[in-house]
Amino acid sequence: MSNEQPEQARASMEFEVPFHDTDPLGIVWHGHYLKYFEIARTKLLRSWGLDARDVMGMGFRVVVAETRCRHAFPLHYGDRFRVDVWLVDFHYRLLLAYEVWNLTHNRRSARGRTSLVCTDLNGELRLATPEPFLDKMRAASVI
Amino acid sequence: MSNEQPEQARASMEFEVPFHDTDPLGIVWHGHYLKYFEIARTKLLRSWGLDARDVMGMGFRVVVAETRCRHAFPLHYGDRFRVDVWLVDFHYRLLLAYEVWNLTHNRRSARGRTSLVCTDLNGELRLATPEPFLDKMRAASVI
Amino acid sequence: MSNEQPEQARASMEFEVPFHDTDPLGIVWHGHYLKYFEIARTKLLRSWGLDARDVMGMGFRVVVAETRCRHAFPLHYGDRFRVDVWLVDFHYRLLLAYEVWNLTHNRRSARGRTSLVCTDLNGELRLATPEPFLDKMRAASVI
Amino acid sequence: MSNEQPEQARASMEFEVPFHDTDPLGIVWHGHYLKYFEIARTKLLRSWGLDARDVMGMGFRVVVAETRCRHAFPLHYGDRFRVDVWLVDFHYRLLLAYEVWNLTHNRRSARGRTSLVCTDLNGELRLATPEPFLDKMRAASVI
Repeated sequence: MSNEQPEQARASMEFEVPFHDTDPLGIVWHGHYLKYFEIARTKLLRSWGLDARDVMGMGFRVVVAETRCRHAFPLHYGDRFRVDVWLVDFHYRLLLAYEVWNLTHNRRSARGRTSLVCTDLNGELRLATPEPFLDKMRAASVI
Repeated sequence: MSNEQPEQARASMEFEVPFHDTDPLGIVWHGHYLKYFEIARTKLLRSWGLDARDVMGMGFRVVVAETRCRHAFPLHYGDRFRVDVWLVDFHYRLLLAYEVWNLTHNRRSARGRTSLVCTDLNGELRLATPEPFLDKMRAASVI
Repeated sequence: MSNEQPEQARASMEFEVPFHDTDPLGIVWHGHYLKYFEIARTKLLRSWGLDARDVMGMGFRVVVAETRCRHAFPLHYGDRFRVDVWLVDFHYRLLLAYEVWNLTHNRRSARGRTSLVCTDLNGELRLATPEPFLDKMRAASVI
Repeated sequence: MSNEQPEQARASMEFEVPFHDTDPLGIVWHGHYLKYFEIARTKLLRSWGLDARDVMGMGFRVVVAETRCRHAFPLHYGDRFRVDVWLVDFHYRLLLAYEVWNLTHNRRSARGRTSLVCTDLNGELRLATPEPFLDKMRAASVI
């Protein structure tokens, strides 16, 4: 994790692995990590006033343009884990990074990134992060 | 299966169990059957002109009021299976029944039911199946 | 809810609706309720020493034989909700009942049931709840 | 797509967007693309004799080490789409690339990559693709 950012640019959440997220190897199926990312990201964006609903009210939609996830250690049924999310860049898109920490085994489980872009309500892509978004982030002392 | 109904009141689909639907026991997690039901139901309703989109265009929404599923034999990773869906009743709600047949093991895997009700676009519940729905079903020789 | 049971025969959990569980109608897709049921059920069974892992260690597997869910009021993105689960019967199978309460709208969202049966590790069905299960439930003052 | 590879190094599958994969924006939630990738990948690996089951029988497990997905155009409810998957590299890990084509709108929907690594049945990581894997791929004229 980069350490230069204000606390408001980060969020953390703790989870427990549910049975229905585990596969025949007894570990979380890789695609479910994107759900955990989303739940942590929602917490972060909401704290800035940029939850999906806020954004709709502002006349925009936020869509996922790119995701990455690198797996280092599995999450097993019942394991406790923490997802940290933080802002990496906000100029042309909101770039968020994640770290998943398996608390039960005290090992880093995964790292990831999501790139979010804005469209207006007709789906027209905005090439830069809209000014009202930046205003919200400034008001929240994120940038 | 009841046999008194016209062929138009039924549909069948074949599937193969994907890895991501299987749990640590190596079998399909029970909740995923509702997805298979939905895919088969979509095929059936679409053949009557009552797909989710058609229904929206008619000024209604169809929502699931009740589901049941009874499991008899598991579906394992890679198993081929067939879902049959057919209309049971249409007066106050659309009642559909399902049978899931494990083709790889030649065993009945599950039976289920879904009860669908109609609302208008404001979410106001219709206590009987709307006349335009019945018209579509008559035109398709379902009822 | 029946009221004759000891507190140990019940459990409750609170959740918030994540974006990825909502459908084009902006509400939780009906099949996801079975996940919420499972998470609450896991909490209850674990409090009795009958979590999936405990059960494997005892030489058994617990499989879902039947599910039902009746929907009364939707869960929207961001809504807070509570799932209550309680034991209804334990003689031939574990029968659990659920109530989902939409806390944001103060409305009952759904009711459900799950019937669980036991098999030995070879998959052979037990026609009655195994004695070691009953012992655990007695030790936990559930029955 | 690179064009230097033998046909055996590629596979394609066609799908239709089911209702339960779509979100409040009416489009496929981004995380579901990893399911589509997996289904296409399974077809490809199976054609080489390297399906999850084959691999277990050979004394190995294949785990996902990294995923990427870049979204260009949405998939809406009911859209037909095709997933192409092909082998990019096989030395230290199996690197597969994907292209998702929205057939209904004749637009490229997404591109992705998955990196797979092998472990033995105890979970010990193999730093190079095991020789029996390469043998299978040679026998299938993939490499």
